[in-house]
Amino acid sequence: MTSSTRRPRRTQAQRRDAARAAILETAVRLLAGGGYSNMTLADLGERAGYSRSLAAHYFGSKPKLLAAIIDHVRESSPPSMPDTLRGVGRIETEIIKFFDGLVTDAENIRAYIVIAHEAATSLPELLPMIHEQNVALRTRIEADLREGIRDGTVRPDLEPVSLSIAITTMIRGVAWEWFTDPNLDVMACRQAVLDQVRVLTATTT
Amino acid sequence: MTSSTRRPRRTQAQRRDAARAAILETAVRLLAGGGYSNMTLADLGERAGYSRSLAAHYFGSKPKLLAAIIDHVRESSPPSMPDTLRGVGRIETEIIKFFDGLVTDAENIRAYIVIAHEAATSLPELLPMIHEQNVALRTRIEADLREGIRDGTVRPDLEPVSLSIAITTMIRGVAWEWFTDPNLDVMACRQAVLDQVRVLTATTT
Repeated sequence: MTSSTRRPRRTQAQRRDAARAAILETAVRLLAGGGYSNMTLADLGERAGYSRSLAAHYFGSKPKLLAAIIDHVRESSPPSMPDTLRGVGRIETEIIKFFDGLVTDAENIRAYIVIAHEAATSLPELLPMIHEQNVALRTRIEADLREGIRDGTVRPDLEPVSLSIAITTMIRGVAWEWFTDPNLDVMACRQAVLDQVRVLTATTT
Repeated sequence: MTSSTRRPRRTQAQRRDAARAAILETAVRLLAGGGYSNMTLADLGERAGYSRSLAAHYFGSKPKLLAAIIDHVRESSPPSMPDTLRGVGRIETEIIKFFDGLVTDAENIRAYIVIAHEAATSLPELLPMIHEQNVALRTRIEADLREGIRDGTVRPDLEPVSLSIAITTMIRGVAWEWFTDPNLDVMACRQAVLDQVRVLTATTT
């Protein structure tokens, strides 16, 4: 097999990937704007610029499409935490990145909340994916707190499990208020969360 | 007009109130169980034990029914804060009552989250009611913190606005995780929130 025989196959794969991505991004926009029940697979293919049957062909069903969106959103916003950060610096960066995302990545986050809601009401088969994300954030923050205790950037007597619950629930609570209040002062919330985390972690030097 | 001529009228009003309440409670159960889009007004009347047209007759439309449910849920769980509590004691009681509600009042809280979600995606006319609830909780907690500063039960240099944001977002964040995770350890979350609020408010005596 030569490279010239492989090229057409790659091109077809690339075209398929582009069509899949276009459908996923259109789905994110529709979910973020009008929720789940107003979206149909047929509409979706058409609005993405393809046939009415393509979304069903690629994803099979609306629940399977939602699962693909969770993966797509996760891949399009990788953690990208600077390796040089340690302990409390990592937690502050995690909080800042999250709040910045409410501004720069609003459609993805709105779509994610819509999907999580649908999982909790009518599509329980998606709940394990949502739960996995919840646990992943909490586990990261708990590990950062333990590292901060070791490296002396947080007070040594704090309770990492309890504080990681408090920090992740603050982050999720702001996301929820932001979702239901278009006028929420996101930067005031960001500052409030950072300030309280500083009080909670401060070493008493 | 004598009492005997008034009695039949009162009875009719009582029957109407009972039917309205039955429809609202059935709606809460359906919303909590399967979300908004699976619920129809016709089904609702029938499942509540009345005619298929009664829910539409009383409430007019699904959005108006949702607004009535918000009022109904608010009235059925009044604040009932002991007058003797002051400052940080009021905040701790607010937190404990909220977490107890996730267990004892689960259907009302699930239905409320479903309605808030619907407001944020497809029924923006309901957003002001949701926003009002968010502001009311924050205002109560901020007032309690200011009182705690005055009466010496919380540290005098805390920032009431910032801390009231942190506390309300923790409460909402736990509600959101509870909604999407049937196995969430609610009592561990309750303890975590209470512990962190104690650290954040503690006087340094």
